[in-house]
Amino acid sequence: MVSFAARVADLVAERGGLCVGIDPHPGVMDAWGVGQDLAGVEAVAMGMVEALADTVAVFKPQSAFFERWGSAGIAVLERCVGALQDSGALVILDVKRGDIGSTMDAYAQAYLGEGPGSVDAITASPYLGFDALAPAFDMAEAHGRGVFVLARTSNPEGGDLQLGRTLSGAVVAQSIVDQAHARNQASGVDAIGLVVGATHASLGVDLSEFTGPVLVPGVGAQGGTVAGVRAAFSSSPALVLPSVSREVLYAGPDPGRLRACVARLLEG
Amino acid sequence: MVSFAARVADLVAERGGLCVGIDPHPGVMDAWGVGQDLAGVEAVAMGMVEALADTVAVFKPQSAFFERWGSAGIAVLERCVGALQDSGALVILDVKRGDIGSTMDAYAQAYLGEGPGSVDAITASPYLGFDALAPAFDMAEAHGRGVFVLARTSNPEGGDLQLGRTLSGAVVAQSIVDQAHARNQASGVDAIGLVVGATHASLGVDLSEFTGPVLVPGVGAQGGTVAGVRAAFSSSPALVLPSVSREVLYAGPDPGRLRACVARLLEG
Repeated sequence: MVSFAARVADLVAERGGLCVGIDPHPGVMDAWGVGQDLAGVEAVAMGMVEALADTVAVFKPQSAFFERWGSAGIAVLERCVGALQDSGALVILDVKRGDIGSTMDAYAQAYLGEGPGSVDAITASPYLGFDALAPAFDMAEAHGRGVFVLARTSNPEGGDLQLGRTLSGAVVAQSIVDQAHARNQASGVDAIGLVVGATHASLGVDLSEFTGPVLVPGVGAQGGTVAGVRAAFSSSPALVLPSVSREVLYAGPDPGRLRACVARLLEG
Repeated sequence: MVSFAARVADLVAERGGLCVGIDPHPGVMDAWGVGQDLAGVEAVAMGMVEALADTVAVFKPQSAFFERWGSAGIAVLERCVGALQDSGALVILDVKRGDIGSTMDAYAQAYLGEGPGSVDAITASPYLGFDALAPAFDMAEAHGRGVFVLARTSNPEGGDLQLGRTLSGAVVAQSIVDQAHARNQASGVDAIGLVVGATHASLGVDLSEFTGPVLVPGVGAQGGTVAGVRAAFSSSPALVLPSVSREVLYAGPDPGRLRACVARLLEG
């Protein structure tokens, strides 16, 4: 079986190293001239698929914008994910799940198993402890899929907790990095990735040993560039995946403008 | 408008202070003699509704066990929530969401607005910072709904982070308690609750000033009793809501046994 990290690396070599968000939020729906309704969500999601699914390596649909519309919104998400995968792209579903025991098992089966909501990777949130996410790690490692654990995020409210200290004395975000690294070393497949924001002048975490994938939101509208992200992570052996959402989404709905925006970001 | 805390208090006075989980997980489905499929999920969820919706004050469906089955599973959840509310019960959806900005807005609209997934309260996870959850707090306060923020959880993996220190020097879990209290003081409506586990000998958090609702999982199969929970929180003015899942679920599917189990827990 091909590991998740190898699947990402192969596709990035072929299509370029960029992750594009699929976020049908109200502002984007207005910009696309579609209604603030389920049909509008579907127009944005499938418009992104039609314009970009065969040229972008990785997509990151944001679950919240589909959950907003209930079960019918999730059905749109399922169709979007299926179409992305049919075009050979990888899908990281941004769900930031985190729970314990049989509940975490259920999330793992929901998104990393063989059910209708299955994707290539998810994001996960470690407030309940990194090890509480183990059911998702197990499932990802067994199925060639991935889990991106929040380590250091780009929002201003995140630092007080993430740069605090665990009971055992480590910086919180660094403890996530180190536990993810240890898990990857033990499994040998780099199924565990990290989410690290691009907008900090200093990252506050040491990734000099981390070899897994790192999802880096903050490119484009949030101020970062692909080149800037690569420079910020230049001392790390990680597989860095800059992620852009608004800058691309607001280039739509015209497919040519969407593709041109992606091409420009990949050059810069 | 009646605040969430007042709605909970009124219903607890009428029906007793217990929250019952609706967790259609594989073990429960086996015990109920239903299939490991969507029909099995619906049988468990609606069986709980039929037996208990008119006698239990608060229900806590666990989203993961519905997400496990994709959009069709969420449709079952929506029917379950609707039936619970039609019987006068309150619904805390255990989703542990936590994000930032427009994404957190979308979660707030998904669960605390007027959409098809709307419930009375949700659980939320603060790894991205307590203040990042503000869109959910705003929506809850405006609609007489609630948000239960994870503070100190009962799983063994939780302590290293939750009993660590924030950058500003507070114990992490206590900082969540204090921020929730400050928010409730400012709004005057106690819309912000906490999740605090019942299985710790010492809670490790000071709730002596907290007047909002506190959801306390861990009753029943996890070792706690309703009386034990009340004793553990006796020094707090909080509206304590002991929560039980497995012990009740495994009493099913017989409605009489389900009701007897709830009655016994409320006595003990």
